[in-house]
Amino acid sequence: MVTRDIESLNDRYDAVLFDVGNTLVQQVFTAVSSTELEAILLPGVRETFEVLRGRTRLGVVSNTTTMTTKELSAHLQAVGLLEDLEVIIATADIGIHKPDPIPLVHALEKLGVQSRRTLYVGDNESDSIAAARAGMDFCYTGPNLHDSLRRFVASSNDPWLRASKWVRVPDDSIANELRRHLDVLVKPPGSLGSLEDHVCRIAAIQRTTRPSVDPCAAVVFCADHGVAEDDHVTPWPQSISATMARVIAEGRAASSVFAGASDVYLEIIDVGLASVVSSAGVRSERIRAGTENFRDGWAMSLEDVRAALGVGAATAERLIAGGSRTLCVGEVGMGNTTSAAILISRLCGVEPIESTGRGAGIDDETLARKRQLVSTKVEELRKDMDVFELLARVGGLEIVSIAGFIVAASSLGVPVVLDGVTTQAAACVAEALVPGSKSACIAGHRSKEPASRHALTHLGLEPLLDLELRLGEGTGALLAIPILRSVCAAIVGMATLQEIM
Amino acid sequence: MVTRDIESLNDRYDAVLFDVGNTLVQQVFTAVSSTELEAILLPGVRETFEVLRGRTRLGVVSNTTTMTTKELSAHLQAVGLLEDLEVIIATADIGIHKPDPIPLVHALEKLGVQSRRTLYVGDNESDSIAAARAGMDFCYTGPNLHDSLRRFVASSNDPWLRASKWVRVPDDSIANELRRHLDVLVKPPGSLGSLEDHVCRIAAIQRTTRPSVDPCAAVVFCADHGVAEDDHVTPWPQSISATMARVIAEGRAASSVFAGASDVYLEIIDVGLASVVSSAGVRSERIRAGTENFRDGWAMSLEDVRAALGVGAATAERLIAGGSRTLCVGEVGMGNTTSAAILISRLCGVEPIESTGRGAGIDDETLARKRQLVSTKVEELRKDMDVFELLARVGGLEIVSIAGFIVAASSLGVPVVLDGVTTQAAACVAEALVPGSKSACIAGHRSKEPASRHALTHLGLEPLLDLELRLGEGTGALLAIPILRSVCAAIVGMATLQEIM
Repeated sequence: MVTRDIESLNDRYDAVLFDVGNTLVQQVFTAVSSTELEAILLPGVRETFEVLRGRTRLGVVSNTTTMTTKELSAHLQAVGLLEDLEVIIATADIGIHKPDPIPLVHALEKLGVQSRRTLYVGDNESDSIAAARAGMDFCYTGPNLHDSLRRFVASSNDPWLRASKWVRVPDDSIANELRRHLDVLVKPPGSLGSLEDHVCRIAAIQRTTRPSVDPCAAVVFCADHGVAEDDHVTPWPQSISATMARVIAEGRAASSVFAGASDVYLEIIDVGLASVVSSAGVRSERIRAGTENFRDGWAMSLEDVRAALGVGAATAERLIAGGSRTLCVGEVGMGNTTSAAILISRLCGVEPIESTGRGAGIDDETLARKRQLVSTKVEELRKDMDVFELLARVGGLEIVSIAGFIVAASSLGVPVVLDGVTTQAAACVAEALVPGSKSACIAGHRSKEPASRHALTHLGLEPLLDLELRLGEGTGALLAIPILRSVCAAIVGMATLQEIM
Repeated sequence: MVTRDIESLNDRYDAVLFDVGNTLVQQVFTAVSSTELEAILLPGVRETFEVLRGRTRLGVVSNTTTMTTKELSAHLQAVGLLEDLEVIIATADIGIHKPDPIPLVHALEKLGVQSRRTLYVGDNESDSIAAARAGMDFCYTGPNLHDSLRRFVASSNDPWLRASKWVRVPDDSIANELRRHLDVLVKPPGSLGSLEDHVCRIAAIQRTTRPSVDPCAAVVFCADHGVAEDDHVTPWPQSISATMARVIAEGRAASSVFAGASDVYLEIIDVGLASVVSSAGVRSERIRAGTENFRDGWAMSLEDVRAALGVGAATAERLIAGGSRTLCVGEVGMGNTTSAAILISRLCGVEPIESTGRGAGIDDETLARKRQLVSTKVEELRKDMDVFELLARVGGLEIVSIAGFIVAASSLGVPVVLDGVTTQAAACVAEALVPGSKSACIAGHRSKEPASRHALTHLGLEPLLDLELRLGEGTGALLAIPILRSVCAAIVGMATLQEIM
């Protein structure tokens, strides 16, 4: 669960400006003389400043008719806010009042920051209009400033924040309604077996008794892993990842052929390949050139984790905004089953020996080394370790991006069809970050990788296919789509028993 | 195995005419005077006449320059053929010789038969031309007349005979060639799991390293079972079968929706529903109005079995001639899992208790009765019983038709994707009738019905899907098609490792 709160405001803003009356301190009426005034801090203000202090530049812009900036400063000092404020503007001093944007623009000039990187926090419409006219974002305060800013963060322009603060639970009543409908169609009740369960889950996620997989989009997140830089855990060089990204984009890999055959829109996204791919078909959302080799340190920084979550969430939002109603997810990343094994071991409480497999097909000697590494790492990582830190320590960028993708799709009521063990590991990460995210996942297939079974149990998912695939690239998710499409079509197309009698 | 041999010629011909020299007896040269000639019967002639005698009208038409009909008759008497021959024509008598058709037309006139119902058997081109000009079918003889006619029967106008006499073994060398190709595509070797096995099988059946499921056609064979006439083995009345045939034809059943979603041409064929379906979308190939209740006798006659095999074989031929390169098969027939259980028990050597299940969903009491009936019948049917008799005793018409369908598709190198337990029983029947037929089968899915597991083991098939379906109508076959289509597309569309390096 993300608990970092409003500190993330500094991702998006260089400065936060506040109105004063009814925002930071109790509103005063002009009838009371300034000297008589006793400033009383409002709920949540102290906590807000504690978090933002030193992270974001702070200031106030207050409409006043008689109070000067000096007097205002004195009151703010009385409540202990003065030293955090880099700019203090009382509109009486410039003779222009909000909703004119000039007081805010003055503050921007004094701080030397851009309006689009500044947030104004106030309590009324004139504050909001002033902010809009000044080109700033605006946040209404409420009974508690801190809570209001938290809500604002949750509905911010940051896709990850939007996704992670908004858990959308599947609607079981819709699943039940659809199940009753399935039972009156011209077939023996329950005779579509596990497909009935799958389609009812999709209905609950999509919140409609007419679920549909179409339009369907698939994303293959591609990234490299420093741990694959020698042949310690895989014989394949990192360069294979970039090559595969290019071949998929060219339509000549299994996933691209399957996507075409299954009428699924396919995107290939580079979130951190070791080398840049020279293909127009690969979308670049590069965070860094692969992760570090985590045998000797951290795979990436906490900031990289945050960025990867953002890329994944933004991708899901973009595709869903574009019309997609089901998403498939896959990955390319030499060595990523090592990270997947560690994450599944740690998040699902599985012994490393049980979660480590041959990936794309390694020999006994490499498997032994891989097992040893997974084992060592799992021991190193404390059980109560923050998920961000866990991800930063063992990667990888594509796993984190997929987790962000799943959380965002879940928050928007769009099912995500998982592929093999690496995407299943990402789903476990998503669930650890935002509990409830797993409820939007559909298991496309059971991977041959041993950790797959544990991850699926942890996620509470029954896989649709069991074809012993171990290819990745989203292939196992893509193959499930036509089956789900057929069942969705049956709900609409089949007659009821009553109709035919 | 069908061993009925050339006696079936009388299905198609009212008369068979033979050339004499080098067809019935050793060729003689004109230098030898007629009286010195000693006629020597050729191999296979005696056996041929033994089979055809009394079934088909027989005659000879021989090109001669000096020998009269009377002299010819004397020689034929010497080898014991005269009394079987209703007409004997020596061309010297009429002064016109083959390849002129007149001698043959004379024979037709004497017998009072139609040319299109007459077969001429000879040894050279002029015989063949004469027959064609006379409007007759022609059969070349060879080293052994009987064998030649058997081969001719196998290429006859009877689809079942054509199918059952011509076993086409899948070409394993093509499967191996494709497997080598799969190993050089841009993916870890073997990473498409069991799909690689399936696609290699299809390649071997189709005899091409570029296998394709398209165009694909599905047939739902529909028939009723007398055993379902009370609620002894199923609570559903027979009338449901006809209703379901109509609903499928109207596009409002699961199979019709799945076929549409999977881009598969769908045919619904009535091979023996209890009542006629009032729907233009149901093709009528009705053999009889359902089978008899086999609790008290035989389900149908041997002739019905033969007719149903013919309908199935003709259907496969027609669809394949129309371009289909993969066929799906399904069935509708209330009560047919009872027949399927008996057939699988008998043909696969399975205990009745293990082969009898709940079908579309019967209660415990009905299941107990069904088990008792299956058990009684399996005991009644001798282990060495001719398959034709077995089928006539327990039915059903759709199962026999599907067996004919499979045998014909197999003989033409077209894979048949099976649905559930009833179609799997039919595949066991096909294999019993024509060993090798099973090699053209693909198991679409594992049915929930317990006999399914035994049938699949007997057939040596691994099912593609395992979704706990128990709907029938071909649904489990239809759902497998998009997956097979994707893999076939991958063979053509994927780059090789060499190409991308």
